[in-house]
Formats: sequence, structure tokens, C-alpha cells
Amino acid sequence: MIEPNMATMLAFLTTDAAVSAPCLRRLLREAVDESFNRVTVDGEGSTSDSVMILAGGAAGNAPLRSAGARGAGAFRTALREVCTELAQAIARDGEGATKLVRVDVEGAKTPAEADRAARRIANSLLVKTALFGGDPNWGRILQTLGADRITLRLDRCVVRLGGVSVFAKGRATGPAGRKRAEAALRGPEVTISVALGAGRSRAHLWTCDLSYDYVRINAEYHT
Amino acid sequence: MIEPNMATMLAFLTTDAAVSAPCLRRLLREAVDESFNRVTVDGEGSTSDSVMILAGGAAGNAPLRSAGARGAGAFRTALREVCTELAQAIARDGEGATKLVRVDVEGAKTPAEADRAARRIANSLLVKTALFGGDPNWGRILQTLGADRITLRLDRCVVRLGGVSVFAKGRATGPAGRKRAEAALRGPEVTISVALGAGRSRAHLWTCDLSYDYVRINAEYHT
Repeated sequence: MIEPNMATMLAFLTTDAAVSAPCLRRLLREAVDESFNRVTVDGEGSTSDSVMILAGGAAGNAPLRSAGARGAGAFRTALREVCTELAQAIARDGEGATKLVRVDVEGAKTPAEADRAARRIANSLLVKTALFGGDPNWGRILQTLGADRITLRLDRCVVRLGGVSVFAKGRATGPAGRKRAEAALRGPEVTISVALGAGRSRAHLWTCDLSYDYVRINAEYHT
Repeated sequence: MIEPNMATMLAFLTTDAAVSAPCLRRLLREAVDESFNRVTVDGEGSTSDSVMILAGGAAGNAPLRSAGARGAGAFRTALREVCTELAQAIARDGEGATKLVRVDVEGAKTPAEADRAARRIANSLLVKTALFGGDPNWGRILQTLGADRITLRLDRCVVRLGGVSVFAKGRATGPAGRKRAEAALRGPEVTISVALGAGRSRAHLWTCDLSYDYVRINAEYHT
């Protein structure tokens, strides 16, 4: 995960719900895997990033003792929502970030390849600087996947920027799509979505663009 | 390897030496593995980077038919020197680079871990921005190795910047070393050397720092 200036991400969550420790541990792990562990600002994980949760029981509910218990579904959903909101805030607040970026990969051969593809795109300096510059550069997206040997079928592959298809059927979709994608890239939130056409696995990730201020903040900081 | 603005690295080498195709192929592969394949500017490989060599035979030597032939040693050394010089020039000329940086890793558990450790350091945005800012930040170097689960023995680990030890025996070496390392970081060429204390494998890599101009060049470029 990220660690602005070598600090550490520490997240503390509290709930009034009564939840047993094993159940809480399982639901937190699930939520974290889909939220905090799906953020990258610069590919630099701090070795001491931590998420902690305390359940006090003041709500007076019948204690949730398993993930399948009555009421656990609502708690799971709420926990994931909170974690997702905090995780997005980390990416939005990345050093020098001007845009919150969601990367969606689908059609990957395996779940591991889906994750690797999403991380490769999100951490690519060329993709991140293109986002900062507002360039709907599908070439940089496909190139970085190719360099990492991600399985894809180019004839089935689709790249969408802000919901606008810019690459499909093995070629650029043309100037009209390009213009609409450029407009979408001007907003504060952008989704990059890539269909690889090689399977059924998917993964998502939140990240941000790379601006001058990333360099300034991290170059000016001295130990 | 690098690919400024999505172009491709194409290297063409010619020699008057008479060398058989299989011998030339083997010696080129050896030289490329130690030179071009040991460069990273931003971790972005172009899928069509190429190195080609032509041997014309005008030198009139007895044709080299194997890597063990008489005279092959001198040819091998010369070829590696040329490739290394060109490879260093690529890193020195990286987008916005202000410093040529050599990363040396030794004491790794396996050759694969040595290579992974060197690439991790060379591609770390936090390390690259610290180099640009002239900060002898050994913390960012060790942190990025830790985040990638590189095997190291902290009590035996030594980090040197420009030949100056800044971390040894599990701690910073102190303000005097720090000052000398800061002075070394002001030059146009810097070596980061890390002894992991976990084995006997080593690897090296050439890279460069990350400045505002990397962002400018790659954000302003439009397809």
C-alpha cells in the first residue's frame, strides 16, 4: 500500500455491534482485501500498514458469532462500504494526485493475472503521467500489459476510459471516441476499464495520476 | 527496457571481425544480458526493443566459430564494453534524468532475488525521487526491499551511497557518513550498493533519478 513520506497507513475502525473475535477477523479480512489492499499510489508498500477494528457491543444485538449468522450480511456490507470509502480517500489523497482513478480488469485468464494486470496498469509511470496530461493513451495501457506478459486476445480486447471505448477489435475506435475520452479525463474521477478477452477473471484497484507534485513532495522531503 | 514516448530501443552493432552466426548470437546474448537488459528508466519495457549485430569479416581474421575459439575472448570483452557504454547512455538519457545511477546488490539468497532486489530499488519512485532531491535515504531502500519480501539479515546488511556506508549493523552510521553521502549524491553519477547478508548472489542495474521533467515529458506527450 502507499506510505506518504515513509509514514505508515494506520486505520482504526470501531463499531457498537456485538461481534465475536473470529467472526470480526474474518469479515475484516474480507473487507480489507476488497478495499485497502486494492489501493496503490506508487507501488510502495509500507511493511507496517495496519487496519484494526474494535467491536464494543453497545448496540446490544445478539452477538454475531459467524459470517453466516443472522445480521452478519448487513454488517459485512456496512464494513466493506466504510473500508472502501477510506481506501478511495487514500488514493484521492496520494502525493500530488489530481485524479482518483479506478482500474477495472475483466476477461483475465486467472484471478492472479487479473490482479497483476490491474496493478501493472495502476503502477505504470507512463499510464499515470498520461492521465495527468489528459491523454487517452490506450497504447501505454496495452504496452505495459504486454511487457508483463499478461495473456490477452487483441481482437477481443476492449479499452475504455471514463466509459468510452477507445480501443476495440484490434484498433483505435477513432477520433470521436478519442474526443469523448479526453473530456472524461478532465474530471476528478476516472475509470480505466480493460477487457482482456482471455478468460473470466476480474480485478479492480484504486490509484491516482502522477503529477509534478508527487516528485516535489517526495524529493523535497528529507530524512 | 525503457521506451521514451512509446518509441522503441533499436540498437545496431557492426564489426569487421569474421564471426560465425552461432558464435555471434551467443556472445551478443551474453553481452546484452549484462548491459541492455540491465537498464531500467521507469520499469516500462517496450515489447519490440531490439539489438542487432552484423559481422562483415573485413578484418580478415580466422573466423571465430565458437565462444571458446582463440581470439573470442578479446571479441567478447570488446562487445560487452560497447554494449555497456550504450546501455549506460540510455539510463543517463532517461526522460528528465539528472543522474546516472548504478544499483549493486550483493549477498542475495539466489540470483533471482538479487535481480529482483536490484530492479525493486531501481524502479522505486520513492528511491528515485530521493536521489533527485539528494537525500541519502537508506530507509526508502530497505523499505522497498522489505515490501517485496527480499530475504535479508538486517544485522549484516550494509547500504552504501556513493561508496559511503550510511546503514550498517542494523542502524544508521551517523551524521558524518550522512554528510559525505549527501556530497556524493550531488555528482552526476551515483552508485547505490546494498549488501543483503543473506547469501552469495549479486546483480547490478543502471537507472536514473526521477525529476519534474520525467512528468513533464511524459504528460505533455500526446498520441
